[in-house]
Amino acid sequence: MAAGIINFTRGVPPVNAFPVGDLIECVEVALKRDSDTLLQYSHAGYVPLREWLGKQYEVGPGQVLTGNSSLELFSFLVENLVSPGERAFVESPSYDRAITALRRSGAELVGIPLETDGVNLNALEDQVKEGAPTLMYVIADFQNPMGVTTSLEKRKRLVALAEEYCFWIVEDAPYRRLRYWGQDVPTMRSLAPERVLHLSSFSKVLSPGVRLGYAVGPADVITKLTRWAVDWYIGPVLPTQGMVYEYCHRGLLDGNIERLKQIYRPRLEAMLTALDDHMPEATQTRPEGGFFVSVMLPEGSDVTTLTARAREMGLLLTDGRSFFPNPDEGNRFLRLPFCSLTPAEIEEGILRLAGLL
Amino acid sequence: MAAGIINFTRGVPPVNAFPVGDLIECVEVALKRDSDTLLQYSHAGYVPLREWLGKQYEVGPGQVLTGNSSLELFSFLVENLVSPGERAFVESPSYDRAITALRRSGAELVGIPLETDGVNLNALEDQVKEGAPTLMYVIADFQNPMGVTTSLEKRKRLVALAEEYCFWIVEDAPYRRLRYWGQDVPTMRSLAPERVLHLSSFSKVLSPGVRLGYAVGPADVITKLTRWAVDWYIGPVLPTQGMVYEYCHRGLLDGNIERLKQIYRPRLEAMLTALDDHMPEATQTRPEGGFFVSVMLPEGSDVTTLTARAREMGLLLTDGRSFFPNPDEGNRFLRLPFCSLTPAEIEEGILRLAGLL
Repeated sequence: MAAGIINFTRGVPPVNAFPVGDLIECVEVALKRDSDTLLQYSHAGYVPLREWLGKQYEVGPGQVLTGNSSLELFSFLVENLVSPGERAFVESPSYDRAITALRRSGAELVGIPLETDGVNLNALEDQVKEGAPTLMYVIADFQNPMGVTTSLEKRKRLVALAEEYCFWIVEDAPYRRLRYWGQDVPTMRSLAPERVLHLSSFSKVLSPGVRLGYAVGPADVITKLTRWAVDWYIGPVLPTQGMVYEYCHRGLLDGNIERLKQIYRPRLEAMLTALDDHMPEATQTRPEGGFFVSVMLPEGSDVTTLTARAREMGLLLTDGRSFFPNPDEGNRFLRLPFCSLTPAEIEEGILRLAGLL
Repeated sequence: MAAGIINFTRGVPPVNAFPVGDLIECVEVALKRDSDTLLQYSHAGYVPLREWLGKQYEVGPGQVLTGNSSLELFSFLVENLVSPGERAFVESPSYDRAITALRRSGAELVGIPLETDGVNLNALEDQVKEGAPTLMYVIADFQNPMGVTTSLEKRKRLVALAEEYCFWIVEDAPYRRLRYWGQDVPTMRSLAPERVLHLSSFSKVLSPGVRLGYAVGPADVITKLTRWAVDWYIGPVLPTQGMVYEYCHRGLLDGNIERLKQIYRPRLEAMLTALDDHMPEATQTRPEGGFFVSVMLPEGSDVTTLTARAREMGLLLTDGRSFFPNPDEGNRFLRLPFCSLTPAEIEEGILRLAGLL
């Protein structure tokens, strides 16, 4: 190893994750069968795909909106639901692009400290009593950036608060199916389908380039969101929806996810081992799935200067401050994506990082 | 004919417009060659396509942003350039969805009366002197909804005003290449590349389902817009960009456009003849290309009640009011899309319409 750049910046899958041959066959078959629909305008997306997704969530296609990425669907939700000055809660830390979307909306952004089993409930209850939010954005499974999973107990309390104080929970679940060990925890949507808007995508389980995201929620919200989306761009890109539908319809998705787990599990193990071995002084999370481990560096560390020094050593890091609604709280925080690196590259990266501390 | 619904609502191509076989071959070849890129995240879109588009406009790829529809790129522009309360000018009438995007931004929307050779220049100059807009949205070729083309003289005056008063002209040109007779008029972009943001798409010349739009403009604006787009959705859908790139790269687009002209030209002729024959009392436009003819009905007509009565006769119309910033001005206005109807259907539709008047 030694030489070469090690990139710990973003959660990007490796290119060998993409089932290229199957996807080519699927797009060909889909276009041959249904070009009149797939090459034409649509509104809420490709109906067979919405029906297939609906079955996974035990709802009809009227409760499913597909779009060109779940991030964009989140922006649609924010534009629809949140008015300037209204409160929006996020886990602290949270997905940097979701924070950006909420900031852009003019919402009053409130971060609720995230612990290893979900947000701190006392802090959440205090904030809710001070002023209920319009929505709370939660990545309950293998959170981006921390890697932690919200416990069932905390999920129940979250949705109970949402029901009591009438706010929306936006449950973003792109990593949910990438569990490498342990047991699934029920989605918040399954606990309170009338209070939870569930977002997910095919980016992490199939291909990010297809930008295929979806929202599952109460029919009236999905209808409102669909109207807004029609005004915004008429309809989403369809040939790729046909391709992904055909792929799912053939039952290939589960096998692909199993294949990805075989690639990613050893990488997560390598990351955790390397952190134990080389950075015992940092506080790390111990995720059971997803793309990310995170570490809180020892007191006195400063990620901004660290990031600059790391770059000189061929180690690319994301400044942890971008994940916090209050950036100063991220001054010792690092997110470490492991999925696109080999175990050897991961160990080398952690060795370089440890050398810098 | 006689029975059956005749749909004069929206500008949707007929399904026989889509070159299905070629597109299937192109997506297969593109994915085989470049799956590592096309199935992965990107930012400004697929570089080979941006380069190909740049060549058409004699600019580099840094002046081209691709996205999931030109309508969405227009929304990106509006979000970037227009602050609430600022003035935005549109032709009156104009594309209803562009009007919606500008309204959503909180702009003060001003309609400049559109004549058969472009906007009324006196009205435009008066409005500019009253308060220059941040941008003016113009469909200079085969305008939606009127069908008219802005003359070279008026294009020159428009860009001269934009230069003098420092506002942007957004030139939306999706129909430009569908000219059935007469001569091309230079784009406004070619007259003032530093003051014009040019939008176009593949919806009308290839397939709307691919939702592939693009913006061409000064490098600094494209860079700013790209950053905003990355925050909004990371990057556009790519496999379809690979498909369309391959199609263009093989030199198939010109032939497809010629084929479309053979389909659409007789339909426009049929529409103009039917209007001459059956509705001589209405004032019609005489487009030389595009998707739409429009008519101003005789004094005393009312499109809202007409639309309801027409529906009972199996004739679907769009209420003309939606195309006007001041909806009341559209009370006698009808847009008549002809591209997806056969000449016989067009004549039947105009006969039904004439019968209602």
